[in-house]
Amino acid sequence: MTKFDEATQAIRVDETTYDVCLDPGYSIGGPLNGGYLMAVILRAVVDASPHEHPVTTSAQFLRAPQPGPGRVRLEQIKTGRTATMTRATLIQGDKPFIETLVTTATLADVAPEWTDGPSAAMPPIEDCVKLPDPKPESNMTFNAQIDMAFDPPTIGWLAGDPSGRPEGRAYFRMAEPQDPDPYILALAVDALPPVVFSAGARGWAPTVDLTWHLRALPAPGWLTLLGSGRMISDGWFDEEVEVWDSAGRLVAQSRQLARVGRG
Amino acid sequence: MTKFDEATQAIRVDETTYDVCLDPGYSIGGPLNGGYLMAVILRAVVDASPHEHPVTTSAQFLRAPQPGPGRVRLEQIKTGRTATMTRATLIQGDKPFIETLVTTATLADVAPEWTDGPSAAMPPIEDCVKLPDPKPESNMTFNAQIDMAFDPPTIGWLAGDPSGRPEGRAYFRMAEPQDPDPYILALAVDALPPVVFSAGARGWAPTVDLTWHLRALPAPGWLTLLGSGRMISDGWFDEEVEVWDSAGRLVAQSRQLARVGRG
Repeated sequence: MTKFDEATQAIRVDETTYDVCLDPGYSIGGPLNGGYLMAVILRAVVDASPHEHPVTTSAQFLRAPQPGPGRVRLEQIKTGRTATMTRATLIQGDKPFIETLVTTATLADVAPEWTDGPSAAMPPIEDCVKLPDPKPESNMTFNAQIDMAFDPPTIGWLAGDPSGRPEGRAYFRMAEPQDPDPYILALAVDALPPVVFSAGARGWAPTVDLTWHLRALPAPGWLTLLGSGRMISDGWFDEEVEVWDSAGRLVAQSRQLARVGRG
Repeated sequence: MTKFDEATQAIRVDETTYDVCLDPGYSIGGPLNGGYLMAVILRAVVDASPHEHPVTTSAQFLRAPQPGPGRVRLEQIKTGRTATMTRATLIQGDKPFIETLVTTATLADVAPEWTDGPSAAMPPIEDCVKLPDPKPESNMTFNAQIDMAFDPPTIGWLAGDPSGRPEGRAYFRMAEPQDPDPYILALAVDALPPVVFSAGARGWAPTVDLTWHLRALPAPGWLTLLGSGRMISDGWFDEEVEVWDSAGRLVAQSRQLARVGRG
């Protein structure tokens, strides 16, 4: 069992309740990474479903949970031959922290009938750059869990040279060797720094709604994350992430609506 | 009050229950249009919210409701100064038909800080084409409510000449004159024929999950719908729709995951 598998464990209490333990190792300066929290919730949802894969996940982020014990409360809304729909809520104490609607189904390993190509081209990985190690006092423990290599212009903001448009592109894998799976994809779709950073914004950019679709089971190897946004307006921005696997297949698509930070 | 406003009315029973009446005039060969059903739900959600606009809506389509009376059941999950999160369920009898998570907020009428352009260019409206009137026995009553003019290649499938990729583009307005508003945008994001038709597929393509974001309040006049998909695989496809208003502003973004029809 990898550290990630352990940190996302959900232990069945009964058919509607799972115990979880939120790991402090996924902190982004305090709050835990939203993708990590989705992975925890999805472990419970899939365990309770007759189907194997979380095909669609819509998550509303109500408030930031603390590291430590919590529960996932499930309500199976409809179950059928093709798909099961579940409402799942991450709870600490008596409070909901994340509300989700999840569709589980079982994806077959087949070639796509039709597929577009990636929305952006990536340079070879040897031309990409890593983030500097965060200062210990920044509480960016998340960075140690993952290994990312960024397309240089999209990380120019770090050196005071933002590209001027919302974007972010990187190769992604777990720091501890592990083949990608749907839970790692949940992490991947929320792993890039907010795309608004490359448009000049700063500060904590809280996600309001994140919806992602699992399109295929990822092949082993690096994932490629292509992030972009269409509009920044009235304090709101959209962030879309496409995830491609090492075999060149689109494996996940996400879009989140988030608030621009005031930092 | 327009026919659309009347058909989407939600009458408050108490703070968690609204009565609705589903109009047979929004049928797509039997089932009611998903965008219409979202508009009905959103009337109840916004009426019960301290905020004015449905900024994010994630809907799971469980089963197709019948025309006639129904209820919207609300559960306000969190309310704050910036946004309110609500779970809303469309019910007939005792059964849930559509589950949604909605974020309401109040959008200001400000210029975007940053915006991309449309994802595709449209020909002038005089070069676009209307759909032929449906046969009465087809029960496509929805078509009479709206006025759409299609970018010709994206409707080539009607004459047996699909473009070969999932796409659909059209100008859109209500048949009965009415300025667009967020409820009309809910209709608009699900108004195009399934994008897979232009890739050669046929038949009822049931939506599993549709998430859309209201990005700005639309200006009066025609809306432009730009629809596309990235992959068709294992019976699933994605459909994304951007909605631009007559002032050239991105007003809504949607993505749905749906099943390819067997028709």
